[in-house]
Amino acid sequence: MIRIGVDAMGGDLGLDATIAASLNIVKDFKDVEIVLYGKEEEIRPRLTSTERIEIVNCPKVLDMGEHDPVKAIRKDRFEASLCVLMNDAKAKKIDACITSGPTQCVVVAAHLLIRRLPQVERIALCPIIPNLDGHPRLLLDVGANVELRPEHISLLAQFASVVAREVLGYKEPKVGLLNIGAEEGKGRPVDKETYEVLKNNPLIKFYGNVEPNEVLNSPTEIIITDGFTGNVCMKTMEGTAKAMAKMLKEEIKASLGGMIGYLFMKKNLKRFAKRMDSKEIGGAMILGIGTPVVKAHGNSDSYAFYNAIKQGINMVKNDVIGHVLASLPSEEKDNGSN
Amino acid sequence: MIRIGVDAMGGDLGLDATIAASLNIVKDFKDVEIVLYGKEEEIRPRLTSTERIEIVNCPKVLDMGEHDPVKAIRKDRFEASLCVLMNDAKAKKIDACITSGPTQCVVVAAHLLIRRLPQVERIALCPIIPNLDGHPRLLLDVGANVELRPEHISLLAQFASVVAREVLGYKEPKVGLLNIGAEEGKGRPVDKETYEVLKNNPLIKFYGNVEPNEVLNSPTEIIITDGFTGNVCMKTMEGTAKAMAKMLKEEIKASLGGMIGYLFMKKNLKRFAKRMDSKEIGGAMILGIGTPVVKAHGNSDSYAFYNAIKQGINMVKNDVIGHVLASLPSEEKDNGSN
Repeated sequence: MIRIGVDAMGGDLGLDATIAASLNIVKDFKDVEIVLYGKEEEIRPRLTSTERIEIVNCPKVLDMGEHDPVKAIRKDRFEASLCVLMNDAKAKKIDACITSGPTQCVVVAAHLLIRRLPQVERIALCPIIPNLDGHPRLLLDVGANVELRPEHISLLAQFASVVAREVLGYKEPKVGLLNIGAEEGKGRPVDKETYEVLKNNPLIKFYGNVEPNEVLNSPTEIIITDGFTGNVCMKTMEGTAKAMAKMLKEEIKASLGGMIGYLFMKKNLKRFAKRMDSKEIGGAMILGIGTPVVKAHGNSDSYAFYNAIKQGINMVKNDVIGHVLASLPSEEKDNGSN
Repeated sequence: MIRIGVDAMGGDLGLDATIAASLNIVKDFKDVEIVLYGKEEEIRPRLTSTERIEIVNCPKVLDMGEHDPVKAIRKDRFEASLCVLMNDAKAKKIDACITSGPTQCVVVAAHLLIRRLPQVERIALCPIIPNLDGHPRLLLDVGANVELRPEHISLLAQFASVVAREVLGYKEPKVGLLNIGAEEGKGRPVDKETYEVLKNNPLIKFYGNVEPNEVLNSPTEIIITDGFTGNVCMKTMEGTAKAMAKMLKEEIKASLGGMIGYLFMKKNLKRFAKRMDSKEIGGAMILGIGTPVVKAHGNSDSYAFYNAIKQGINMVKNDVIGHVLASLPSEEKDNGSN
């Protein structure tokens, strides 16, 4: 039996999304148990079934407006739903953590409470992003670290390669370095150095540079960079997609012809929206942690959250952490504190 | 009379775009003369009028595939159209340069041949980008430098503020620092430092950080960052827009309903495309050079190139360089070599 821990209180929709998703998961996956972390008096009345669903009562919720996640987590370490969830992951009471809490809190909590794998010096936030050919890609780091040394990027590329194989089913995933030019020798000094290190890493299949205008049409299954650059790239994608969708709506509404046309191509436009929709694609993974952690989008509805739980189940079933550990050097580089 | 120098040979469409645009410009602007730089035997037969149009014969064209622009420019310094154009700008024979040649060649040629303003230590590539509210914005640096120190960014922010006032007509343009969080204290060490320097520059109106998901819906008229980050942001925007347009086309074509709907909303979709189209918006400016230089998109047609020339005319008429010089410290920081 796989035990998935769910932060019931996280996300904009809170319990409405997380409980409906959890109920659907236990219905669809007979080998999965869900452990809900949150306020029992709010959760209990909403549960239409308790088959393979447990509640761990947590009296607090991490303050979303908290500017200092480290302080917030230290303060509510044994009381906030996200913290108790991650403590239980550290104690191996559950096999994976799913939350749609605020990104920085999730990254810091995973780091402080579950801790890094001892062989991994930096963790990374790694969303699954859509691609023109219909096959999803991995983009990392989109913000767990603002800066990464070439050795860190190289190790994270190994980690992502395992995820791309075991979770996305790519046989020989290629790694591309996000850079401002296609040729070797492009970018900042750190990018040139990273290129060299990736090229010489026998445990990954390095493709070379991938330019940001290829990010949704990538020749590689994995696109890797430091957390600042990855965050800029991901947010620019989100903002551009949102702005374009808004412009399209405005122009369609601007005339009768547009409105009539809309009636004819409603289904087509829905399929179009679906292709760019993060709900379809799953959550961002935190790589480098000893337990699979999936961070669903903050505005996840029950469908999006269901997909994020499914992604966590996949990571457990395919033993992503075990495969990563097998691919890493066995000696411990440090004791896991950072 | 304003004299605009045009690299007749640059761009994917070459003479077909540049000559048609130049003929239209002299028709529409009676106070403008165009000087065409390129192969006279190819230009001459295409000129339907020579009123206020001159040709400066240049036997060579810079090799577009050239991986080392510095070498290419040094080799053909007195023969390639782009080089002769910029030499004439340096010699004050023309008031502005317009080209759709390859970006890196244009940046390097402007730097080597026209040279920086003595008070400006770094130049920047600054495109005009669209915005949801219909009012264009300035984004810089998108790739003239891979790294920029906070002092450089601050000086370039002054430069961009003058351009936003004099060319785009904003009375009090606000400057936003492109960063991965809205609050002060976000980003890499260099971004935090830049925030401080911008905040303390009395010659600009600093707004604070602007996140990349706001880039097409910006609260500021100017968005500034280093050339690596700006290049990633701009290329991600381009790639996302292109991928979305492709997905939209695919979905519309996928059914009869979509095709019928398309007939009804053809005009609406055209207006939509126009709002994101770089042809409508003009070229990227190279800021920090002693002469206005506008780099049109490589795939510019005559309409896009016409707009780029118009932008150059605006920069001359509104004396952008003069206004910048007036806002800069008067002592020369160095002799203009870099």
